[in-house]
Amino acid sequence: MRTRHGLTPGLPPGTLVAREGAHVPETIEVIQYTEGDVREERVASIADIADLKDHDGVTWLNIEGLGSVEMIEELNNHLGLHPLALEDALNTHQRPKADEYRDHLYVVLRMLHHEDEVETEQVSVFLGRNFVVTLQEHPGDCLDSIRDRIRTKKGQIRSHGADYLMYAIVDAIIDSYFPFLEKLGEVLEELEDDVIAQPVPRTLGRVHAVKHDLLKARRATWPVREVISGILRDESPFIGETARIYLRDCYDHAVQVLDVVETYRELASGLMDVYMSSVSNRMNEVMKVLTIIATIFIPLTFIAGIYGMNFEWMPELKWKAGYPVVWVVMIAITVFMIVLFRRAGWLGGSEEE
Amino acid sequence: MRTRHGLTPGLPPGTLVAREGAHVPETIEVIQYTEGDVREERVASIADIADLKDHDGVTWLNIEGLGSVEMIEELNNHLGLHPLALEDALNTHQRPKADEYRDHLYVVLRMLHHEDEVETEQVSVFLGRNFVVTLQEHPGDCLDSIRDRIRTKKGQIRSHGADYLMYAIVDAIIDSYFPFLEKLGEVLEELEDDVIAQPVPRTLGRVHAVKHDLLKARRATWPVREVISGILRDESPFIGETARIYLRDCYDHAVQVLDVVETYRELASGLMDVYMSSVSNRMNEVMKVLTIIATIFIPLTFIAGIYGMNFEWMPELKWKAGYPVVWVVMIAITVFMIVLFRRAGWLGGSEEE
Amino acid sequence: MRTRHGLTPGLPPGTLVAREGAHVPETIEVIQYTEGDVREERVASIADIADLKDHDGVTWLNIEGLGSVEMIEELNNHLGLHPLALEDALNTHQRPKADEYRDHLYVVLRMLHHEDEVETEQVSVFLGRNFVVTLQEHPGDCLDSIRDRIRTKKGQIRSHGADYLMYAIVDAIIDSYFPFLEKLGEVLEELEDDVIAQPVPRTLGRVHAVKHDLLKARRATWPVREVISGILRDESPFIGETARIYLRDCYDHAVQVLDVVETYRELASGLMDVYMSSVSNRMNEVMKVLTIIATIFIPLTFIAGIYGMNFEWMPELKWKAGYPVVWVVMIAITVFMIVLFRRAGWLGGSEEE
Amino acid sequence: MRTRHGLTPGLPPGTLVAREGAHVPETIEVIQYTEGDVREERVASIADIADLKDHDGVTWLNIEGLGSVEMIEELNNHLGLHPLALEDALNTHQRPKADEYRDHLYVVLRMLHHEDEVETEQVSVFLGRNFVVTLQEHPGDCLDSIRDRIRTKKGQIRSHGADYLMYAIVDAIIDSYFPFLEKLGEVLEELEDDVIAQPVPRTLGRVHAVKHDLLKARRATWPVREVISGILRDESPFIGETARIYLRDCYDHAVQVLDVVETYRELASGLMDVYMSSVSNRMNEVMKVLTIIATIFIPLTFIAGIYGMNFEWMPELKWKAGYPVVWVVMIAITVFMIVLFRRAGWLGGSEEE
Amino acid sequence: MRTRHGLTPGLPPGTLVAREGAHVPETIEVIQYTEGDVREERVASIADIADLKDHDGVTWLNIEGLGSVEMIEELNNHLGLHPLALEDALNTHQRPKADEYRDHLYVVLRMLHHEDEVETEQVSVFLGRNFVVTLQEHPGDCLDSIRDRIRTKKGQIRSHGADYLMYAIVDAIIDSYFPFLEKLGEVLEELEDDVIAQPVPRTLGRVHAVKHDLLKARRATWPVREVISGILRDESPFIGETARIYLRDCYDHAVQVLDVVETYRELASGLMDVYMSSVSNRMNEVMKVLTIIATIFIPLTFIAGIYGMNFEWMPELKWKAGYPVVWVVMIAITVFMIVLFRRAGWLGGSEEE
Repeated sequence: MRTRHGLTPGLPPGTLVAREGAHVPETIEVIQYTEGDVREERVASIADIADLKDHDGVTWLNIEGLGSVEMIEELNNHLGLHPLALEDALNTHQRPKADEYRDHLYVVLRMLHHEDEVETEQVSVFLGRNFVVTLQEHPGDCLDSIRDRIRTKKGQIRSHGADYLMYAIVDAIIDSYFPFLEKLGEVLEELEDDVIAQPVPRTLGRVHAVKHDLLKARRATWPVREVISGILRDESPFIGETARIYLRDCYDHAVQVLDVVETYRELASGLMDVYMSSVSNRMNEVMKVLTIIATIFIPLTFIAGIYGMNFEWMPELKWKAGYPVVWVVMIAITVFMIVLFRRAGWLGGSEEE
Repeated sequence: MRTRHGLTPGLPPGTLVAREGAHVPETIEVIQYTEGDVREERVASIADIADLKDHDGVTWLNIEGLGSVEMIEELNNHLGLHPLALEDALNTHQRPKADEYRDHLYVVLRMLHHEDEVETEQVSVFLGRNFVVTLQEHPGDCLDSIRDRIRTKKGQIRSHGADYLMYAIVDAIIDSYFPFLEKLGEVLEELEDDVIAQPVPRTLGRVHAVKHDLLKARRATWPVREVISGILRDESPFIGETARIYLRDCYDHAVQVLDVVETYRELASGLMDVYMSSVSNRMNEVMKVLTIIATIFIPLTFIAGIYGMNFEWMPELKWKAGYPVVWVVMIAITVFMIVLFRRAGWLGGSEEE
Repeated sequence: MRTRHGLTPGLPPGTLVAREGAHVPETIEVIQYTEGDVREERVASIADIADLKDHDGVTWLNIEGLGSVEMIEELNNHLGLHPLALEDALNTHQRPKADEYRDHLYVVLRMLHHEDEVETEQVSVFLGRNFVVTLQEHPGDCLDSIRDRIRTKKGQIRSHGADYLMYAIVDAIIDSYFPFLEKLGEVLEELEDDVIAQPVPRTLGRVHAVKHDLLKARRATWPVREVISGILRDESPFIGETARIYLRDCYDHAVQVLDVVETYRELASGLMDVYMSSVSNRMNEVMKVLTIIATIFIPLTFIAGIYGMNFEWMPELKWKAGYPVVWVVMIAITVFMIVLFRRAGWLGGSEEE
Repeated sequence: MRTRHGLTPGLPPGTLVAREGAHVPETIEVIQYTEGDVREERVASIADIADLKDHDGVTWLNIEGLGSVEMIEELNNHLGLHPLALEDALNTHQRPKADEYRDHLYVVLRMLHHEDEVETEQVSVFLGRNFVVTLQEHPGDCLDSIRDRIRTKKGQIRSHGADYLMYAIVDAIIDSYFPFLEKLGEVLEELEDDVIAQPVPRTLGRVHAVKHDLLKARRATWPVREVISGILRDESPFIGETARIYLRDCYDHAVQVLDVVETYRELASGLMDVYMSSVSNRMNEVMKVLTIIATIFIPLTFIAGIYGMNFEWMPELKWKAGYPVVWVVMIAITVFMIVLFRRAGWLGGSEEE
Repeated sequence: MRTRHGLTPGLPPGTLVAREGAHVPETIEVIQYTEGDVREERVASIADIADLKDHDGVTWLNIEGLGSVEMIEELNNHLGLHPLALEDALNTHQRPKADEYRDHLYVVLRMLHHEDEVETEQVSVFLGRNFVVTLQEHPGDCLDSIRDRIRTKKGQIRSHGADYLMYAIVDAIIDSYFPFLEKLGEVLEELEDDVIAQPVPRTLGRVHAVKHDLLKARRATWPVREVISGILRDESPFIGETARIYLRDCYDHAVQVLDVVETYRELASGLMDVYMSSVSNRMNEVMKVLTIIATIFIPLTFIAGIYGMNFEWMPELKWKAGYPVVWVVMIAITVFMIVLFRRAGWLGGSEEE
């Protein structure tokens, strides 16, 4: 697991450095709406937005990609976003957190993607009096349903302010954890059968990988509860009474996510124990086979060895019945051994197994 | 274990969507009572209840099944239940919680069923000034004793208000955990003997299944304590002084449930360790058998092999006493080995075992 | 482990139901004392006590056995004990707790008995203005020393009020944990030697049993600290300044008990690890024996097998020195192997062991 | 591990009972000092000290041994030490704690000794307005440096009051933990090499013993932090501003001790895991040797067995080349096996090991 | 792991003793700056600094090495640094902490170095009204970027006071943890592959060493969060409003460090489990090889033994077909066994592996 910090040590705080290799956004997605009206456009620079300050509705700026320092600096110049907050937004290895600045509230959350392994993507949300700015690492997100609700006036979103929009974004991100967790849950279910049936190194590797994924998911989701309870507790002036009630509901969802993640973590470490036990059981089986075979044949081979000796005076060898008697003795020993093993429960078919 | 979230991501909050495949209630069970009077009926719609608002006693509406959106919407229209609370009631994967709204208190609890594995069922309880609404996923519950007490005027229930009814419902649900836990306790007791006597994969699977059940039971019961202490602490206006004293008692029961669940969890993880130890012990036994047999017969077979060689000059072969002497030597070695094994405590019958 | 809840689900709260199979008390032990005077009697009914209310000293009622509902109901009628508290007193699976009611303080503690396995017995203590009521499950307790101090005016008990008597009872119960813990400590000490010397299933069973006993002891003692600190913190009106100072000392004892229980629990789970390691060590030893025997004799047997072949042209067989040379080779191989094993530290006598 | 409680159950609280077998002190060490003057003497009884009450400097009474009840009672009579505190001082199994009484502060700490195993010794410190009383179980302590500083006026001790003396004593006891911990650290370092190199039962026993010692050390040191933070928080009237600053420094040292103890505990349980892994590794090696020998020789012995058969018609036996060909086949099989084992990394010399 | 405490027990507190073997600083690095001006010099003694007290900008004294007591004493004399704080600065085994004294704030942090194993170095930071003093154990640090920013007036450092300088130093130290953690992360990644591929003792040793390093790193970084939150909470008069906002950001970084350290610790203990499982898997493989070889050849050798017996009457030996039939039987047994093993999934090539 890589946990790159992304900080360039030695720079003064608040220095905005574009992340190398980060996606460079070309345009900004702007959605402006009031109860009666909605306008969408894509602009190349924040300066291009006509009534950014005195629009009497809500303005939502969405920037996908963090590679353009100019765009970030404009956010500071035109909207007064604090340099420290913007620095955190560029450093894409933040823990989820909420910081209140004089002119805006700054919230960091992480979206989860599940490709080969779990990946997390940082989303920064700035909430001012009448605007919301979202910064994402890559294009593509889980916010389309919000755009849709704004466009079609579904639900209450158009009749509320910027705080409700921020709530809707936070809620959408938290809700997007659930399908993700369901997928992990299915992987765990599969593994549960496999660790008992096939305790092989590949299964061990998969258990280990799932534990990794859960660790990553936990790091992304664990602080979310604190973030929301912090916003609720601090009575931020940017959040009105209605949005507060909705955020409280959001808090319950965050707790539910944590609950599931912790349950999965317990299941995953339980799997490790079960794996170990299964390996031991398998080894036990192998040992039993060896022991049964060896214990039956070693004495028989010994008897054959006895009568393979070349002593001149060995009376049994002369007897006509010698050879059949040896066979009888050998069969008797074998039957006796098999009965013993059955009693000890070492042979399948015994009721103990 | 399935942990379906049940949320349809992308919907605006407070949107009421009937759960697919959920039980569709046809009628609502209505019980209205005052100290002197009690009336029971089943209605198809809340609008059918004559004196819902101005009944001067307590009205209890019980809805079994969450598949009818109309019925849920009526709850909002006629009783003023908050859409967010109703949305949570329909999403049947809530953690137990208590939320206070302006017009009512909303409490979520979970009932436990034990069929093949542990199942939990969500119960939503809405407490208003003079009514209680309960929503359950399926018909059938643990509240019959309350209905009985209302009908027969047993205990104090008829002489108290809606808050006492809510207390009685919460208490009945918590009390229903005890027989459930007792059953789990019996399963654990059985397993305790089995892990030592029969450390086979089937037993391992059962231990693992019990740990699963306990995880589920813990998720359902753990938050109950917080729920009740939250209600007590927040001094909700819907709960009077008497009901408060009774809820405090209820809190003690909830703590007792947690205590038992945690104890069982410790026992269950102890079982895993004991299982591992038992498997190791068994393997040890198998190894001892193999070692005893091999250690006795391999040297004997070697001796037989010696005198099976075909060298022309092997004086022992000519001696008449050769053959008997070899037997004597072999028996001596066997006796010597057995004595050694007894000393080492490898043979049953030794006082060490 | 049995953890019967003892609740009959479905009964209204405060309903007093005698526990089936519980000991039925025939008389109540009454001790009334002032600084100058002491009177002891046994009565059949609380109504028989003459000056219960207006006695100007302390009245101590002790009931041994919970099988008589009449007696319990009299406690409610004559002394005003709250039905909820009495219900808890009858349900003998309470966690230790302290609840303050309007007319009295109600404290539940548990005594520990060590017969075959650890058993706990519930003791309910009710403290009113001038009386103390104690309810026990069975006759026989650890309070004789208190009776003695009252009778003989030893210590300060006769010069203080009911609160001091309650303190004395709580203190006596906590002190009775120490000899109990000492006994458990001795069992642990024995087991520590045994798990290394005799890692057999019986030892494993004993370790498991001790862990059980410690779980039970912890459930009985763990909440005691909270109980006392709760009484101290809530500044109950039933407890005077002097008794408060003594209870603080009692609190220190309770913490000491917890400390010992936790230490024992750590020791007991350490034992499990040591047991596993010992089993592994033993198996290692068994494997070494097998390997040494097999590794020495298998090559020798192979050599003997070679010269047991019946090829017509095998020149060695004709040599007179053939047989002695084979013996020399075999002895050389054996010596070489033994030296190797010594070097690897597999044979006792090596300095590594 | 012995954890004798030392309480005689059934005695009234505050009853002073000399501990059986405890060291009986014959004299009390008295040090009285002011900024300008210092006086040392040994007295048989507290009554012998002339100006105990009205000495205008600091009086330090040090009693080594707890066997004399008279001396303890005099402490109550002449200095007003509370009976409950004195009872605790005699019961030498107290957890470290600080209790404030009306006339004095009572602090319990434990000194650590490392002989064969870790032993702890209780030190009681009573701090009054102008006196300090220390009670130890045995003669000999870590306070000589303080006596020296008083005598030679080194540092600030002579210019401060009794509170500073108490601080100096507490500080000396905490500082004495460090050499002790360093010794334990060296034992752990040794064991770390041993568990990998020599995973034998003796090493296991030593790991277990170190874990015991750490448990004891933790029980003695863990509460110290709370003790000091309790004194600082409660703003005890016996402690002045300067002593408070010094105690804060002392608190940091106590935290440092805890930190080291916890780190050692983690190391010690890590050792257990490494031990188990080493044992498994060893067993693996033993198994490999057995498998290599058996896998090479069993097939060879089989071939020899084939040509030891006595069938009349076995053409190979007649061939002149038969015997050499068998040898060639056997050598080929051996070489092939060895190559296979090398590939699998089972033979030393492979780069994998 | 060495955890030398570095305290000389028995010395009065505040006694400054140079650490034996510590680096002896010859000169002090002095940087004095205002918004418009910056001056750097190296002096031998603090007394040599002209306008130490009345410089109207910020003075930063940096001392590398703790071996010179004179220099330390001058800090007390000229800058009023508290003797207790200076004693802690000399004792290089402090936990990170922040103590506020009357004239200055004292902060201890630790830098991490990664050579063969992790080493930590103590840095003491004293913040007064207009000066900052830093004491390090060895020359060389992570603060060059700050010196550079002061010299070149980069960022805001020159326009703020001493509190901002202290913030910058704390921030630089915390930022220096990130590359360190990244390196550890890479080691963990490597080990993850190795524990599955090569479960040999050397790998075990490396896992153990990484766990050690993480323990050390945790001890150095864990308290940092508390240190900063303590400074923020206590509203120290030495820290202005702006520096406070920047410290809050610093706090987030500290939390991020903890988060990574904890994640790594979980990964490292997971590695131990995976190692154990891999060893078990390997042993299982070894056992399978042994069992397959033995199970096939032992019965065959037995058959050969039978016909190596020398009975006079053994009809099979006379049959011409005897020898070929025996071969056919043997090959049939072998094929049968191999089919069985394939079914059981013991042979590579089966789809189960």
